[in-house]
Amino acid sequence: MTESVNRVVLAYSGGLDTSVILKWLQQTYQCEVVTFTADLGQGEELEPARKKAEMAGVKPEHIFIDDLREEFVRDYVFPMMRANALYEGLYLLGTSIARPLIAKRQIEIARQVNADAVSHGATGKGNDQVRFELGYYALAPDIRVIAPWREWDLTSRTRLIEFAEQHQIPVSKDKRGEAPFSTDANMLHTSSEGKVLEDPWDEVPDYVYSRTVNPEDAPNEPETITIDFERGDGVAINGVGMSPATLLETLNDLGRKHGIGRLDLVENRFVGMKSRGMYETPGGTIYHLAHRGIEQLTLDRGAAHLKDELAPRYAELLYNGFWFSPEREMLQAAIDHSQEKVTGTVRLKLYKGSVAVTGRKSPFSLYSEKVVTFEDDQGAYDQRDAAGFIKLNALRLRLLGRRDQG
Amino acid sequence: MTESVNRVVLAYSGGLDTSVILKWLQQTYQCEVVTFTADLGQGEELEPARKKAEMAGVKPEHIFIDDLREEFVRDYVFPMMRANALYEGLYLLGTSIARPLIAKRQIEIARQVNADAVSHGATGKGNDQVRFELGYYALAPDIRVIAPWREWDLTSRTRLIEFAEQHQIPVSKDKRGEAPFSTDANMLHTSSEGKVLEDPWDEVPDYVYSRTVNPEDAPNEPETITIDFERGDGVAINGVGMSPATLLETLNDLGRKHGIGRLDLVENRFVGMKSRGMYETPGGTIYHLAHRGIEQLTLDRGAAHLKDELAPRYAELLYNGFWFSPEREMLQAAIDHSQEKVTGTVRLKLYKGSVAVTGRKSPFSLYSEKVVTFEDDQGAYDQRDAAGFIKLNALRLRLLGRRDQG
Amino acid sequence: MTESVNRVVLAYSGGLDTSVILKWLQQTYQCEVVTFTADLGQGEELEPARKKAEMAGVKPEHIFIDDLREEFVRDYVFPMMRANALYEGLYLLGTSIARPLIAKRQIEIARQVNADAVSHGATGKGNDQVRFELGYYALAPDIRVIAPWREWDLTSRTRLIEFAEQHQIPVSKDKRGEAPFSTDANMLHTSSEGKVLEDPWDEVPDYVYSRTVNPEDAPNEPETITIDFERGDGVAINGVGMSPATLLETLNDLGRKHGIGRLDLVENRFVGMKSRGMYETPGGTIYHLAHRGIEQLTLDRGAAHLKDELAPRYAELLYNGFWFSPEREMLQAAIDHSQEKVTGTVRLKLYKGSVAVTGRKSPFSLYSEKVVTFEDDQGAYDQRDAAGFIKLNALRLRLLGRRDQG
Amino acid sequence: MTESVNRVVLAYSGGLDTSVILKWLQQTYQCEVVTFTADLGQGEELEPARKKAEMAGVKPEHIFIDDLREEFVRDYVFPMMRANALYEGLYLLGTSIARPLIAKRQIEIARQVNADAVSHGATGKGNDQVRFELGYYALAPDIRVIAPWREWDLTSRTRLIEFAEQHQIPVSKDKRGEAPFSTDANMLHTSSEGKVLEDPWDEVPDYVYSRTVNPEDAPNEPETITIDFERGDGVAINGVGMSPATLLETLNDLGRKHGIGRLDLVENRFVGMKSRGMYETPGGTIYHLAHRGIEQLTLDRGAAHLKDELAPRYAELLYNGFWFSPEREMLQAAIDHSQEKVTGTVRLKLYKGSVAVTGRKSPFSLYSEKVVTFEDDQGAYDQRDAAGFIKLNALRLRLLGRRDQG
Repeated sequence: MTESVNRVVLAYSGGLDTSVILKWLQQTYQCEVVTFTADLGQGEELEPARKKAEMAGVKPEHIFIDDLREEFVRDYVFPMMRANALYEGLYLLGTSIARPLIAKRQIEIARQVNADAVSHGATGKGNDQVRFELGYYALAPDIRVIAPWREWDLTSRTRLIEFAEQHQIPVSKDKRGEAPFSTDANMLHTSSEGKVLEDPWDEVPDYVYSRTVNPEDAPNEPETITIDFERGDGVAINGVGMSPATLLETLNDLGRKHGIGRLDLVENRFVGMKSRGMYETPGGTIYHLAHRGIEQLTLDRGAAHLKDELAPRYAELLYNGFWFSPEREMLQAAIDHSQEKVTGTVRLKLYKGSVAVTGRKSPFSLYSEKVVTFEDDQGAYDQRDAAGFIKLNALRLRLLGRRDQG
Repeated sequence: MTESVNRVVLAYSGGLDTSVILKWLQQTYQCEVVTFTADLGQGEELEPARKKAEMAGVKPEHIFIDDLREEFVRDYVFPMMRANALYEGLYLLGTSIARPLIAKRQIEIARQVNADAVSHGATGKGNDQVRFELGYYALAPDIRVIAPWREWDLTSRTRLIEFAEQHQIPVSKDKRGEAPFSTDANMLHTSSEGKVLEDPWDEVPDYVYSRTVNPEDAPNEPETITIDFERGDGVAINGVGMSPATLLETLNDLGRKHGIGRLDLVENRFVGMKSRGMYETPGGTIYHLAHRGIEQLTLDRGAAHLKDELAPRYAELLYNGFWFSPEREMLQAAIDHSQEKVTGTVRLKLYKGSVAVTGRKSPFSLYSEKVVTFEDDQGAYDQRDAAGFIKLNALRLRLLGRRDQG
Repeated sequence: MTESVNRVVLAYSGGLDTSVILKWLQQTYQCEVVTFTADLGQGEELEPARKKAEMAGVKPEHIFIDDLREEFVRDYVFPMMRANALYEGLYLLGTSIARPLIAKRQIEIARQVNADAVSHGATGKGNDQVRFELGYYALAPDIRVIAPWREWDLTSRTRLIEFAEQHQIPVSKDKRGEAPFSTDANMLHTSSEGKVLEDPWDEVPDYVYSRTVNPEDAPNEPETITIDFERGDGVAINGVGMSPATLLETLNDLGRKHGIGRLDLVENRFVGMKSRGMYETPGGTIYHLAHRGIEQLTLDRGAAHLKDELAPRYAELLYNGFWFSPEREMLQAAIDHSQEKVTGTVRLKLYKGSVAVTGRKSPFSLYSEKVVTFEDDQGAYDQRDAAGFIKLNALRLRLLGRRDQG
Repeated sequence: MTESVNRVVLAYSGGLDTSVILKWLQQTYQCEVVTFTADLGQGEELEPARKKAEMAGVKPEHIFIDDLREEFVRDYVFPMMRANALYEGLYLLGTSIARPLIAKRQIEIARQVNADAVSHGATGKGNDQVRFELGYYALAPDIRVIAPWREWDLTSRTRLIEFAEQHQIPVSKDKRGEAPFSTDANMLHTSSEGKVLEDPWDEVPDYVYSRTVNPEDAPNEPETITIDFERGDGVAINGVGMSPATLLETLNDLGRKHGIGRLDLVENRFVGMKSRGMYETPGGTIYHLAHRGIEQLTLDRGAAHLKDELAPRYAELLYNGFWFSPEREMLQAAIDHSQEKVTGTVRLKLYKGSVAVTGRKSPFSLYSEKVVTFEDDQGAYDQRDAAGFIKLNALRLRLLGRRDQG
């Protein structure tokens, strides 16, 4: 594990943990550390990370702080939303979808600065280590990967803080004790897990939520909005055209206000254990439902049902970290093929934690009032056709029945 | 179509349409009509149906009025709920699941009274004709099926009412005009479609809802309940043991009060067209989420993900009317096999249209705080294992990367 | 059914049945008939069809005889082969894959000559009627479709021949009696069914086979060949580059000689019944196995397994006639995405009815002798990684075991 | 890794490798070794293993030699064959299916003799280590597993033989050099891989095959046999009732004689690499095809197609070692549910490497000559039903076409 490393690109948040990692890498591997800090809309200022990196001796030209918000929504969140992906029926995959982008950018930087290794701050029990590292290996098969949490001996909070103090890493007061829970955030969601959430019977305390108001405190009046879609992606809210990231931010504001998108989940991690988490996905929850709404009108049944059958697999692949895999790309090719006419407008009502589609329209609607009407349809549909349709669908069941009920 | 029929068992609600059908059958086929009226918890009194049937000349011993509520929930709704079935991602299949039971009972009665035919009041454009008739044919392959809506010439409301009046069938005032929408109801749900709902852009008018209060009118205080499950089925609410039907009724009351389970949907019918419907599934919506909640704790990942992949197919089979088919039974066998340890308690919060799981516990929990904890786990999980796990999962991606990025 | 038709495009083989249909259409609908005869490599001369059409009064400019062999193999057979599609595990879909192309061309001609209807000679019990008509409707939703076998009263052989004789349609001697079986042929296969094949316990008589020698009569020496693939499609045999149709013809010759590709099958028709058929797919059988051979080397496991899971659905769609459907196109998009590097050479041995892959090589091979070797691999694979891999894959099973075997 | 072990149950073949392991375990762990040798029909005498174990100091009461042949075929091979499982479309899973039974028996013995560990001789690059260990952990979550090949330093053949010689382990002459390939055998198959097989372009040398004659040397006359099935399992050959193991042995003899069941495959291992193997599955190949043959007649289409869609997943689970997993059991429950009427007789022709179904019959046949006949079916099937069937299946495609081709 200690074969020589020259230069390592670290996914660096500027927080205590990755600051300790930065120092530990320098010390353990006697190598140059390059920091990469991504703005994925997590809502934190990133310039302090630059300062901290500088203070830790990182060369200015080796400090990368990138605003990836548009790329994140356009090339990761939206493609995933086209699939209507839900992990285990409920989870909108907010953490999973951010990891491949970080990994991809880290590898790009590694190539740019001629680094021979990459490193991240994910622990050895979670899914994120897998997601980062599968991304690294897929994009740079021979890269060296350093996962400090699996290597070092700073296995307790106390030792981590000791190490920080020994190395002049500032430790803010609230980091000194054990955190009551740990969080991850990006533009799509905030997740929290650990400590106060570890007993899945205990209700999530209200102070854990940070992205949404409590539904009980949300406005007493519902709010109605529209989202316009083009080829499967959102392009406007209330008729106002927006870039992908702006659109998601706008939905986040709406979701926050109305207490939308909270989820308390016990899920199955790829590494084999169950964990309990709390998710807040305000804008994503609205968007997901809206996308289903526009598909209802514009997707053919065959396409829609095939998508529904593929979606759990797609979600599992993302959750497990296989974004950069041939099978995810194959599924994406199938899904994207279906979205060409997924264009139109969905109206939604937001109210105290819930979101409901209340209308949808499209220039490419497959809904035919003329065919479906209870009124006289003037020959658009011949009800007698149904007799033959049923008879032939029943034929095999009748042959079975004759055999088995003789 | 007019080959001789001796005795036909009609699925008879006592309403105007099936009363017209009763008379039309007698007249057209010169046959005896046997009426079958099922109590599936639709919330209507059924004794008037007896009177009407008698008035129409049906022999008392040929009037069947059966309370099927417990059988409906125990043998149809609960097995479906074990599958977490949602049609097109959202619809809880409330109408679909009632049809096979009605068909089954009709065939039993046909055998009992020596009838050679069965009949129903479903139209030629919908899914219900298919569901009824596939059920009939599967259970009695050589039964004669009469679908008046596909045969007769009473194709407009006016002609239907004329026919009723000619034959002394009482027509209540509100039935004289075109109904603004049509509904189907049973203990699981009420569905509405047609007329005022036909434009999928128009919001569903509030007067269409009958089973739930408007969320805005629901109590301002959330209500917390628990549901106990045993082997995948609900057995108690708030610790009070209940029969399946009582349990569902109790959840319906709770859902009604809190405005839970409304759904505005454009769906794909089996007969090939899109339709727009409104569904109210108050208790079922709560139950569905609670079942997922207890599975989160007690189902292994392999079982859970397999279930998630099979669920869309299962839902499609039910929606299309293939309850009595080998493939539905195969899927059910797989699903039921997974439910042996799905036992425990789920806590839910009901509030203004939304329902959220806030806790779950089980004597058969697979969640291990000891393994998952961020704290020192005392060797329950060796983080170094993750390195090998990732390495071998990455191996094929690295080989790919070496080939494709060389 | 007798609303006026002006001009109908008939899929016309020149044989007795479609000649009767031609006349019957003229007579019944008082319409102009346009004939379309496709060369799909069925191995019959097509010019006689022109003469017969002329004799039946079809205008010369309304007689279409098209050589579709290259299009057939390139745009239909090859894409299907990329999917490794087998219906019910065994059948290479030789009839199914020809129908959409015929339908497509018929619709093109209908547009060209301003026809308002199309017609085909498939019977009312088979799959082909469905395949033709789903193709017609998908490509020309408002086209009028005439299916004589479902409409007319020529329901016995005797009446058909009477009609032919009344209308000066030549009836060759061997057509006077009942045929002992019926066949369909194109470049991919010949199928036979009916009469002497109707008892699935009876062995298929040797005289039914027309495309392959009996394996017992095949050469006593095996023959070794190579097929080169590029991006998933065959491009050369024994190093000689060939067009798609030439390549398939060449494989057909080889298959014929070695008795390869015979299949006796009882299959499930889309219309609900079982039928027994005999298929000869000489070249296709070799090609199918060769394609699997090259994929073994060049497809990643994730892609390969996803393909294997999608293939039965893809095959079912083709068999049922849904070539022109969004869901088939979605699957094709996924499959085609996987084929980019499916390039290389497969060596096969042909011998007395069997075909075996004996070697494969590729510039894009993912097989790594260095990794897989039993010898010292010099660090290409660290066996200790397997321990962690197994441990984490086992974790959920251990948690289960502790619960269930406690 | 050297925490103390008291008693370990070793899967012991008596060959050189497991003899070395036996000694190495005694020495390294200072523990008692219990040997378990299974007769799975691999065709070797097992009593020598007893002698060798005794010589190595294993107590007589700690030497277990069990004849598991009937259990192997009845409870492992047959259930798998009910699924028609083929890994990557071709491989009959002969090695995969034996591992869970060995693991199960090892755990039973461990409980019986109060052992705290189990051990096996599979290497760190293959699938078998995973299959053994997932089995161990599923059945005994807290068992200690020792995998010598991943632990020791005997990483070359030379060192292994040195160790053997130092410890008086007899080394036969042919084991002194590198073996040209390695094999695994049981009643279902023999597999070979490594060395001379490592270049996937090189043809498998004839001397590698041990279970089948070269097809070219097989009899010049075909042989016809019948297999009787009851509820999905084979029960008789040529009308002679047989136990599962006897039936498979009998088919093996037939397959050997006719050169049936050879397969040259490049496959994807669970541990992430491709490997090239040669398989001989003489009886299994015949049985697999025969089972499909009887299903053709007795399985409904819905059941058959669902099975075909589930089979790749089932095969993957077995290959990867997840026999003792909830998801495999769920799939098995579904599959077994379908087999109740899979009863009847299949006739097959064996000839020079190929096997063909030539007839099948069943008291539970769903094939209806009356329905399928080209002749007058006397109303068993109304061809006009097909019109409605097609119309409604086409409806969504027509609505699509009107939208997209307008």
